[in-house]
Amino acid sequence: MPSSFKMTRRVVFSETDAAGIVHFANFFRWMEEAEHAFLRSLGTSVHQQDSSGLRGFARVGASCEYQSPLKFEDEFAVVLSVLEKKAKSLTYGFSFEVSGIDKPIATGEMTVVCITRPNDADRMRATDIPADLADLITVKS
Amino acid sequence: MPSSFKMTRRVVFSETDAAGIVHFANFFRWMEEAEHAFLRSLGTSVHQQDSSGLRGFARVGASCEYQSPLKFEDEFAVVLSVLEKKAKSLTYGFSFEVSGIDKPIATGEMTVVCITRPNDADRMRATDIPADLADLITVKS
Amino acid sequence: MPSSFKMTRRVVFSETDAAGIVHFANFFRWMEEAEHAFLRSLGTSVHQQDSSGLRGFARVGASCEYQSPLKFEDEFAVVLSVLEKKAKSLTYGFSFEVSGIDKPIATGEMTVVCITRPNDADRMRATDIPADLADLITVKS
Amino acid sequence: MPSSFKMTRRVVFSETDAAGIVHFANFFRWMEEAEHAFLRSLGTSVHQQDSSGLRGFARVGASCEYQSPLKFEDEFAVVLSVLEKKAKSLTYGFSFEVSGIDKPIATGEMTVVCITRPNDADRMRATDIPADLADLITVKS
Repeated sequence: MPSSFKMTRRVVFSETDAAGIVHFANFFRWMEEAEHAFLRSLGTSVHQQDSSGLRGFARVGASCEYQSPLKFEDEFAVVLSVLEKKAKSLTYGFSFEVSGIDKPIATGEMTVVCITRPNDADRMRATDIPADLADLITVKS
Repeated sequence: MPSSFKMTRRVVFSETDAAGIVHFANFFRWMEEAEHAFLRSLGTSVHQQDSSGLRGFARVGASCEYQSPLKFEDEFAVVLSVLEKKAKSLTYGFSFEVSGIDKPIATGEMTVVCITRPNDADRMRATDIPADLADLITVKS
Repeated sequence: MPSSFKMTRRVVFSETDAAGIVHFANFFRWMEEAEHAFLRSLGTSVHQQDSSGLRGFARVGASCEYQSPLKFEDEFAVVLSVLEKKAKSLTYGFSFEVSGIDKPIATGEMTVVCITRPNDADRMRATDIPADLADLITVKS
Repeated sequence: MPSSFKMTRRVVFSETDAAGIVHFANFFRWMEEAEHAFLRSLGTSVHQQDSSGLRGFARVGASCEYQSPLKFEDEFAVVLSVLEKKAKSLTYGFSFEVSGIDKPIATGEMTVVCITRPNDADRMRATDIPADLADLITVKS
């Protein structure tokens, strides 16, 4: 796996707010959207349902620093890299970039924990990231 | 049950868009929010989970006509009434009202079908509205 | 212009709800997203700001009928056609389609009115659709 | 002003996701919702428009740590406190609490900068928080 993954996107109208810019909470939706596209690029999905239950990744922390606003119809890239890989968790770093603008529009981080939830239970439990998936994930040096 | 149910709300910033007004899709979220508050007022919830599966109401149609915009921090009421009650479905009517303004800001309709989904299956199936719930619901004359 | 315009999309996780399917209000966000992509395909944008003010399209009505649910990571197409073109308004029809499924997942309509809003005023006013834009728009026969 | 401000809320269905819990990005919408309610409680609004332009608070950073999930129809409180007050910025702390549960469901922080945007310009500029507003704000000790 290359050391980063890039998703490109265009701002849609429902993501803007009355300040005329993208509402700040959408950057968190986009971090997750990039994470899921990244997992698909590795041949898997964030959620794997089988007969015993669900295997997924639960969010335990997220942060974003905002440098410049994005506006309706702006095109931008979300560049994902893996900052840390532990037995049960991953920390992703995100850089929101606009072509022709030197520094990122925003930067973010998100930590997710691998969990299982049996079909007959309501509680999630932390578990090791499956080895075949963990092997595909390269931490940014 | 009275012939209508009223929910009051204030527009939050994340519901506005770059035109400086509430994004039109939010009126559908509010119809559903009023429907669920209405069902709570009858002592039930839109979703009832028991050991056999889920009983809920699936949306099969929704519409909204927009007369005037709402803005950030505006207070408004969603007035719900039941326009039609069939064995398996309900059609709600909604009027979005602002104090001091004569005619509605918007009006809407939403039709929902009572469904069950067994725990061991993926498909929803239409079913009769439980009699004790149906008895509590008065159609607007 | 061809008689229809197609946008393809994949369901993202933040568009799902606790029933395990796409939340119904998102279909209205997608109708608008397809409308804006359609206008870009004609070389314009839904919002045009110049020194005198804003020219845009305000939503006056929208409806959707739901046949089948969409789930996380499903790929689908939004097929837009123009059902009616008047001096000041357009009515779009939408069909939500999934490859391999015969009938639409959902169908919708949305009517928009061309408006202007001077920079020094708060009110929108209906206006004729600019002739050069109207000429590009073909009503579905 | 008391050292904290509390807003209570119930989870609505459109805030849940296919994992059966509240989608994590909504906690950021709720932080902002609590901030705006806090400012209203001080007799002002996050956005003040006058003839010269807009005075508002732009988000420059936000973070959230998630301990336990929230579900549809759960009631919860957002407890806001002011962690830091500078000439041009405020840092808020947030605790998401459910009655009967000892520790917070989630905790968050958000830093906002006071900005002005003249009516005839597109750019926001950082500015001092108006003295009469700053005087009303007590930092948590």
